[in-house]
Amino acid sequence: SAISSAKKTPPTLSSDSVINFARGDPTIYESYWRKLGDRCSMVISGNDLMSYFSDPGNLCWFLMPELDHAIRRLHGVVGNAIADDDRFIVVGTGSTQLFHALLYAFSSPNEPEPISVVAAAPFYSSYPEETEFLRSGLYKWAGDAYSFNKDGPYIEVVTLPNNPDGAIREAVVNRKGGKLIHDLAYYWPQYTSITARADYDVMLFTFSKATGHAGSRIGWAIVKDKEIATKMVKFIELNSIGVSKESQLRAAKILGVISNDCLNSGPIKEENFFEYGQRLMSERWEKLREVVKRNGVFSLPKYSPDYCNFSGEYTDYSPAFAWLKSKEGLNCDNLLREHKIVTRGGTNFGVGSKYTRISMLSSDDEFNLLLERLSTIKGTPNGNY
Amino acid sequence: SAISSAKKTPPTLSSDSVINFARGDPTIYESYWRKLGDRCSMVISGNDLMSYFSDPGNLCWFLMPELDHAIRRLHGVVGNAIADDDRFIVVGTGSTQLFHALLYAFSSPNEPEPISVVAAAPFYSSYPEETEFLRSGLYKWAGDAYSFNKDGPYIEVVTLPNNPDGAIREAVVNRKGGKLIHDLAYYWPQYTSITARADYDVMLFTFSKATGHAGSRIGWAIVKDKEIATKMVKFIELNSIGVSKESQLRAAKILGVISNDCLNSGPIKEENFFEYGQRLMSERWEKLREVVKRNGVFSLPKYSPDYCNFSGEYTDYSPAFAWLKSKEGLNCDNLLREHKIVTRGGTNFGVGSKYTRISMLSSDDEFNLLLERLSTIKGTPNGNY
Repeated sequence: SAISSAKKTPPTLSSDSVINFARGDPTIYESYWRKLGDRCSMVISGNDLMSYFSDPGNLCWFLMPELDHAIRRLHGVVGNAIADDDRFIVVGTGSTQLFHALLYAFSSPNEPEPISVVAAAPFYSSYPEETEFLRSGLYKWAGDAYSFNKDGPYIEVVTLPNNPDGAIREAVVNRKGGKLIHDLAYYWPQYTSITARADYDVMLFTFSKATGHAGSRIGWAIVKDKEIATKMVKFIELNSIGVSKESQLRAAKILGVISNDCLNSGPIKEENFFEYGQRLMSERWEKLREVVKRNGVFSLPKYSPDYCNFSGEYTDYSPAFAWLKSKEGLNCDNLLREHKIVTRGGTNFGVGSKYTRISMLSSDDEFNLLLERLSTIKGTPNGNY
Repeated sequence: SAISSAKKTPPTLSSDSVINFARGDPTIYESYWRKLGDRCSMVISGNDLMSYFSDPGNLCWFLMPELDHAIRRLHGVVGNAIADDDRFIVVGTGSTQLFHALLYAFSSPNEPEPISVVAAAPFYSSYPEETEFLRSGLYKWAGDAYSFNKDGPYIEVVTLPNNPDGAIREAVVNRKGGKLIHDLAYYWPQYTSITARADYDVMLFTFSKATGHAGSRIGWAIVKDKEIATKMVKFIELNSIGVSKESQLRAAKILGVISNDCLNSGPIKEENFFEYGQRLMSERWEKLREVVKRNGVFSLPKYSPDYCNFSGEYTDYSPAFAWLKSKEGLNCDNLLREHKIVTRGGTNFGVGSKYTRISMLSSDDEFNLLLERLSTIKGTPNGNY
């Protein structure tokens, strides 16, 4: 069938393959979804989903009602965000398109100069380029929020937990005229303890990181203010006239299955998606910490367990990325490349090259090869590599 | 099932409903695809299509190989464009995203001022706003190509056949430093005679208008120059990190079925999609011309039949939009609104209000109501309405 031939050929990993951990391709979850078999399958006929419109009466006219419902329900089940009926849901082609939509929504052509966009370093490496590449007169990248001291309106992006370092954050500028974008891509139980139902003005989520379905390009925003939601919808209309309905419907189906499984309290309770993810991520972090401790060349951030409202117990933080630091201050990305491990160096995130970011969401084979290669890296007796 | 509940409730059309022909929602083809039944159905499992990557070795790394193949094959079968292996295919979230990608690809941050973007009036009503809304410093809308007389580089969009008026066009500026975008959204046999295999530097197509699957948001560009294709891919990476794989795979499936049917030379030859579309559009145009002739208030463009290489005979032009003109120079859009027909007035397309654009791609029910209402509009004896 078309689908089976579309499957990526599994990469042949040999001892001299270069392995890439620079991008967070979330293939880690594939075997979970395979195990679920037909429960998440969907059939689309030739005459389905043809119109531009999904819900003509809705402010977000291209949002499928099934997805709207599945998103609100899942947030209720997980308890990670308030998505009550008085909030607007705006769907996007990934949360990346929604980030652009928000820059547009928070800016105005009537302002004398472009609004400044900031984030506290280390920040997600794509924010600067996404903000700058079209040379918009509406907004401009203004760098690290910690050193931002310009008067007037600004946009601060708060990634929570943070990409790349997994830190739990708050806005740092806190001045009048600030607009906040809370990027909660990783605020799910497999990565972090769910300590409260987030209730920020604008919250971004993405199917890619929640469940691993990156190829579907589905993200969503939960928005309090109607005017902001309206401008976001306008952006998406002018940018791509809506969002793939096939992907929306598939996301609705899969999020629905997750919610059902989380709520299942029958006698034979299978491990739900988040329990599975939490166990898997926790195991990977334990292995990584062991290797890092043993070779003595690197350090990793420390996180103390927090009570997770979703699982009802104290859980470890297991971020989607490992933020590795060279103890001797070496260029960490270069050092790893010499061992055929490609990562994304600290300078991309607005900090020094002694840091680098490693994706923790690869396949098992790739992750095991990572551990193997990391364990061969040794510090030199005199402290130089 | 999720799909059946996702289907739009058929609008209840009563004699006092306002009917909307302003947007070209191509629901006209739905019954054709329904008739094909399971032949175009596809099944997607929970673990399919998870990675960001579709074809890591390809310049357009997010393009599914199945879609790449189906696009090249269909253009070969129809004979409407050259899409040989030395051309690059770039997929987009509708051709709208590809239009943005081309503005980015054809401009440069090193130029002293933004590059001018022009199109000959009447032009597609969204080009000005799409070009302007982010106040890019890279490009700016410069209006009607006929009156453009600025020196230096420029981008000219040539829509062929033209939206809104169905005219067959060529570039009009023809000066040094010009970059051309050929938007061939309607260069398919149901709308126009296929007189040659188009071979422009950059050609845009969209699934929405080719087959009526607007909800999938799939467009594609055929590009000669590698550097331009590379910059377009970069744009889509920064704008949305790729394009829905579910939609790409569905487009591949449906385009493949069309190609198969066109090539079928068995004894029981069913009407293929384009033959069906051509017949339907031709019937609609005949009915519309009859009503317009009878009431005497409006005029429509005239097209002379051309030899179509695809069908092997002289065929009528049946554009996707009717470009209606008030003979008495009245505001055509307002006049129709008084009769509960919503259209898009001429000023949106850079010309006068005596023109308006009517979509010819609505459902049968809506189209019949349009004819009914148009036939009730009468000119006044003294020539005033």
